[in-house]
Amino acid sequence: MPATPAWPPQSAPRLFVETSLGQGATVALDGNPAHYLVSVMRVKVGDTVLLFDGKSGEWAAVARDVRKRDIVLECVAQTRPVEAVPDFWLCAAPIKKGRIDLIAEKACELGVARLQPVLTRRAVVDKLNLDRLRAHLVEAAEQCGRTALPELAEMVKLDVLLREWPEGRCLFFADETGGTPIAKALADHPGRAAFLVGPEGGFDPQERKAIRNHPAAVPVSLGPRILRAETAAIAATSTWMALNGDWTAE
Amino acid sequence: MPATPAWPPQSAPRLFVETSLGQGATVALDGNPAHYLVSVMRVKVGDTVLLFDGKSGEWAAVARDVRKRDIVLECVAQTRPVEAVPDFWLCAAPIKKGRIDLIAEKACELGVARLQPVLTRRAVVDKLNLDRLRAHLVEAAEQCGRTALPELAEMVKLDVLLREWPEGRCLFFADETGGTPIAKALADHPGRAAFLVGPEGGFDPQERKAIRNHPAAVPVSLGPRILRAETAAIAATSTWMALNGDWTAE
Repeated sequence: MPATPAWPPQSAPRLFVETSLGQGATVALDGNPAHYLVSVMRVKVGDTVLLFDGKSGEWAAVARDVRKRDIVLECVAQTRPVEAVPDFWLCAAPIKKGRIDLIAEKACELGVARLQPVLTRRAVVDKLNLDRLRAHLVEAAEQCGRTALPELAEMVKLDVLLREWPEGRCLFFADETGGTPIAKALADHPGRAAFLVGPEGGFDPQERKAIRNHPAAVPVSLGPRILRAETAAIAATSTWMALNGDWTAE
Repeated sequence: MPATPAWPPQSAPRLFVETSLGQGATVALDGNPAHYLVSVMRVKVGDTVLLFDGKSGEWAAVARDVRKRDIVLECVAQTRPVEAVPDFWLCAAPIKKGRIDLIAEKACELGVARLQPVLTRRAVVDKLNLDRLRAHLVEAAEQCGRTALPELAEMVKLDVLLREWPEGRCLFFADETGGTPIAKALADHPGRAAFLVGPEGGFDPQERKAIRNHPAAVPVSLGPRILRAETAAIAATSTWMALNGDWTAE
């Protein structure tokens, strides 16, 4: 007797939607998502698609009506509950287009709970296209299996970030003038945390002083080489996840 | 009395050259490097440039002759000895253009000693432009302060890699079917190491079995989310550097 094929199939397309999901919920899509399902993934009536809305977990939905430019799906079973990601924020200064997009993509894959853009004095870029960043978060979430996007906060100025910093959250930052080796700093400070990374040109001396003087701040070192801003962000996030996050479970 | 300005100036351009460097050595450049120094960085006679050749450390060189399309520099002082990087190899399957370039760039910044391309069955790309990869290594080395490039090895097939694996080098690999949490695996296996990452589609079951059966292999887990190939490579390298590499020094 042949084995029953796995359902939902591993090859099922996986899509973030704005519609609220639940048992029997109907999801009507047009535009890009419909184009992706119908023309790229060739979804037919009866095929299964995995959907997530950021708050209801992941649902298997069956295509009920497929046209050239729109598609209607029906949620038939929850395939995964809402995930919990570790309580880690990435606070990053805006940097050049491709590189800030990379920070967003990797933050989502690595499991960051909140991406907080921070404006600093040496930032080469002072505006941020949050819609574009969000699109990168969505694409990464679809690919890496997250059922919710990282929260994407509005950009704040560094002094506001520091003034309004929540109690009980450690603020690691890469200090080019020296700091505790990151592995030691993470062992010394378990619990909820954030990592702050500056722009291409780093923090200016006054900013660095203000950060160092903050009671939650822990200056860390990421080794003897000069890392680009996005490399520091990805490296620090990875190390935090590996040591203090959810990469520690067997 | 005004302070003596720092020499070499922090803003001095930094360039990898193919010419052997040493006290009094003359370096004549044309083509792209000359264009970069003369037209982009506006180097004039008497200005200082930092040079490294991958084997003689970093040298301050003074521009002696500057023309539109070529420039002659003279090495006047060694500014840094040849660096030592930790004995860590990154063995990576070829993946799409932009993403393998990212692996090369980040491997150099993070401090990888050797980048070893590995051909696996599910690789979407089976040729690799080593010249382009090397250009990414050079650019990253110029930017991150390394005085030598990571060794860039010729691509080998996975079975050859495993057959000729050197004794005493741990082979960590991200196993989607489960492994030891990376922080624990790194604590259990200090010393020289490599991390092996597959292509977009992962290793096939036979390959995974062959890797797991290798005496040097240690399957590791990088958490509950599905990481892209280049994310796994960067995350594992960062974590290794932070725990077992040279990010541990105060």
